Amino acid sequence: MPKIQVEVSARHCHLSQKDADTLFGKNYKFKVMKMVSQPGQFATVEDLVIKGSKSEFKIRIVGPLRQDTQIELAATDCYRLGIKSVIKVSGNVKGTPGAILIGPKGKITLNQGVIVAQRHLHVSPSEAKALKVNNGQVVSMKVKGSRGLIFNNVIVRSGPGHKKSFQIDTDEGNACGWVTGMTADLIK
Amino acid sequence: MPKIQVEVSARHCHLSQKDADTLFGKNYKFKVMKMVSQPGQFATVEDLVIKGSKSEFKIRIVGPLRQDTQIELAATDCYRLGIKSVIKVSGNVKGTPGAILIGPKGKITLNQGVIVAQRHLHVSPSEAKALKVNNGQVVSMKVKGSRGLIFNNVIVRSGPGHKKSFQIDTDEGNACGWVTGMTADLIK
Repeated sequence: MPKIQVEVSARHCHLSQKDADTLFGKNYKFKVMKMVSQPGQFATVEDLVIKGSKSEFKIRIVGPLRQDTQIELAATDCYRLGIKSVIKVSGNVKGTPGAILIGPKGKITLNQGVIVAQRHLHVSPSEAKALKVNNGQVVSMKVKGSRGLIFNNVIVRSGPGHKKSFQIDTDEGNACGWVTGMTADLIK
Repeated sequence: MPKIQVEVSARHCHLSQKDADTLFGKNYKFKVMKMVSQPGQFATVEDLVIKGSKSEFKIRIVGPLRQDTQIELAATDCYRLGIKSVIKVSGNVKGTPGAILIGPKGKITLNQGVIVAQRHLHVSPSEAKALKVNNGQVVSMKVKGSRGLIFNNVIVRSGPGHKKSFQIDTDEGNACGWVTGMTADLIK
């Protein structure tokens, strides 16, 4: 069973050009804090405030800009904010709950865009071939330890711009006792 | 495979007589808000504040009083408070992190007592017999749905005062997409 790095994706936000303009000013250049596992993507130095019906807190931005603004939260975050948690594959924001975003230059009220990401396995096309999996396939991933478990319903996401990484959110990371360097076995 | 109710145990606190006396006054009588699944146990109307190095928030008390004060948090709660998360079977508080508890009549600084509970299956002796499991046995529990998964390392806890219930914390509940009435399959 191939071992794959488990990565915990903490709450973060992807912005569209239009929303970035409103929140940070026209054509603002975000500063790279660090590159993240998926090629070309980076966490920015700047952050935002997300506000729901119950509370608000800071959220990290992941660049570069995208077609649509999308906020990825853990269900715990949704509960704390007072936003319904809806599990979706990243990119699929249609009909999802909204939120208020507050930046240094402005504020926007989103009608949709908040998702709890469906757990997924990123792989490049060559990695997909080596692992004998296809884009969209559903697999399972097994982690060991005192909170060992088998995650079912893991969606394979393959294509240019993807690199091998099994991604879960902070709730899932806590549920499986995630530690730095943890790997999981791919089970088909 | 026998189906068993999945119960999410949100953060809560069990108090010793001594600590209850300090926090609420000598021999204070707690008011029952509601009975919980395990026989004789109840959530109280009163709550407490728990404080770590980073923040503080309210926490529910579960009665009756016990030998030792024990605070059961999710790892997410630990992170938010600034308390190390240590996974332990309930009752095993030796060497665990402490916290500050603040009640209406006083404040205590605990040197130990904060645990993240190891997921467990409560069963009465007759239920254990029917399910063919023993106290201390390690089993697995499978839940279905969009976040379906198999929890391994589930400890069976059986004896008088236990009643059939598969108990997980809020992180685990979120990780498996818990909804009211969810059941799990016991896998040995």
